[in-house]
Order: sequence, then C-alpha cells, then structure tokens
Amino acid sequence: MNFCSHCSAPVELRIPDGDSLPRFVCGACHTIHYQNPKIIVGCIPEWNNQILLCRRAIEPKIGLWTIPAGFMENHETLAEAAIRETNEEANANIEIGNLYAVYSLPHISQVYVLFRARLIDINFFPGIESLETKLFHEHEIPWNDIAFKVIHDPLKRFLEERRQNNIQFHSGVIIRSPSQ
Amino acid sequence: MNFCSHCSAPVELRIPDGDSLPRFVCGACHTIHYQNPKIIVGCIPEWNNQILLCRRAIEPKIGLWTIPAGFMENHETLAEAAIRETNEEANANIEIGNLYAVYSLPHISQVYVLFRARLIDINFFPGIESLETKLFHEHEIPWNDIAFKVIHDPLKRFLEERRQNNIQFHSGVIIRSPSQ
Repeated sequence: MNFCSHCSAPVELRIPDGDSLPRFVCGACHTIHYQNPKIIVGCIPEWNNQILLCRRAIEPKIGLWTIPAGFMENHETLAEAAIRETNEEANANIEIGNLYAVYSLPHISQVYVLFRARLIDINFFPGIESLETKLFHEHEIPWNDIAFKVIHDPLKRFLEERRQNNIQFHSGVIIRSPSQ
Repeated sequence: MNFCSHCSAPVELRIPDGDSLPRFVCGACHTIHYQNPKIIVGCIPEWNNQILLCRRAIEPKIGLWTIPAGFMENHETLAEAAIRETNEEANANIEIGNLYAVYSLPHISQVYVLFRARLIDINFFPGIESLETKLFHEHEIPWNDIAFKVIHDPLKRFLEERRQNNIQFHSGVIIRSPSQ
C-alpha cells in the first residue's frame, strides 16, 4: 500500500495513537487503513459414499485436485459462501450440512472454514476455474495430488471419522510446510 | 474507496473479466481491490462458575457489557487473537479452550468466532477500551445491558448448556435487529 484510497495522498506505516501495531495511515486525511485476515470457505460434497473433487484450472496448484472452496464475499453468510463456491467451481447443487472444520493459516493470514454438504443431484460439470469435476470413492482419492495441506488433512480425517461413524467438528492451525 | 492504493489513480467500480461481482478496479495499473468480511474473535472467560465481562469504554455501545473480543490481526491464529484481545481489554491471563461458536453477520460483513477460556488468575483490570472488568455469577449477568446480540445469545446458550452439562459447538447466522 502506497497511497490513501480515500484521498490519494501518500500513506506511512506507523503505530496510531492508542494502537499497538503499525498500520498504513494517510498523512493528509489521517484515515487508518487496517488489513485483516481473509476467510476461505469450502465444503466436502458427498453423494452416497463418494466425494466431489475439482481439478484446478488456475494457479496456485493448477492441475491438482481440491474440494470446492474460495474467498468469502461481503454480505454473505459462511454457508452461502460455500454454496456459491460449489456452484462456481463445479456447477453443483448442494444442501449444506454442519460446519466441519475451522483452521487458522497465520503465515498467509487466512482462516479456512469447511462445511459438510450433500449433493442434491449429480448434474455437475466444471466451472471456469476447474479442468475437471469428478466423484471419488475413498480408495480412489488422489492423495498425492491434493492441492493444499489445509484440504488434504481435514478431508483425510473426515473420511476416517466417517468410517468410524464418529464425525466431529475440528479447529486447529496449519503451519507453513514445504509441501503446502 | 476513491483511489488506487498502489498507484493513486482513480478507481472505478466494475465487474472484472471472469468475475461476477463489482470490484474497485484501478483505471491506470488495473489492480483489483477486493473487499472481504472481517473476523471478530472473542472468548468466554470462566473462573469457577463466574464469567469475566468488560464494560465498554468505546463506541459502539459505550457503557454496556460484553466478553473480550475484537478484530483478528494478520499473521495470528484465531486462538492467539482471543488471548490478545482478552489481554488488551481486561489485562487477563487465560488458557484458551475449545471453539464454542461461529456466527455470520452478513449485514455488516463480519464473522464472529468465540472460544471457551479459563482464567489462570484473577489479577485482571480494565484495559484502555474498558471502563470496568468484573466476574459475574450467572444470576448476576446484566442481560439487558449486554452490548451485542452476537454476544448475548451465545453467552445465554452457553450458560444453559453448562447447567445441563452438555456444552456443544454452534454455528449460525445473526440477522440485523433493532436491538443489536
């Protein structure tokens, strides 16, 4: 950030009075430009025992598989964001289920929120951000080609819990790793 | 938003190619300035059967009571944000517990995340944003003077569940109401 989005004067990075962290502050109109973590919302769409995965058509991790997920927009709920992303990436119709997992990714200032979901039909097809959309039985999931650790780990745990008929909400932290 | 924070040229509100929502886009350097929901993190700090509340010294809702909570910062985890806010508002030392509730507030583009917490000691005292910090037994809580519906409702539910020894994670939506 170089300039004030309100008045266009240069900003400086300094700790405002009464604050404890450096912020971008406008030298002219004194607007403080806060920067905060972003929320990524996704779901684990089930059809019988299968999971809907999307193969990414965009960077990062183009060509790898993931569940439908993306940035939450202003003026929507978490569940609405999950439904919208699933529609955008897979043209899939879902009934949203319980919240399944919440993970902090502090190194990239993101919070991931994952829901369970049930496909209403299997008339899905790739959206513009997907190369391919496909249902996978557990043993068919391409674990080495899952795009993100924050998807790989909860999905693996979900399937283990489902096998044991003991699906439980989780929260935690995903730290940067070379494989992420 | 009037100007590009990258190059200071005027921005225009338009739907970028391949997108579906209007964004502020720079007419000169073409940077897209996304705006996304913010996360508020708080906790329900317990000491024996009492709850620590803070009386707000700042707007909105100055003079009313709430639990420690505030905007999550970049590069921290949800739990770290709850610990920091509790320290800032009440100089209180807590051990963070399980995630208790996640609520969407779509009318103000916020997501509230509330943890359980245990006070480590009772050497708390008001931070700069609090007029007063105090422990309350359930029957002493000033329900008509709780600052926010998104705090009032989960706190009430938490205490009911605690009485029944059946505390469960919740997620949901808080819609705008005249009392909020």
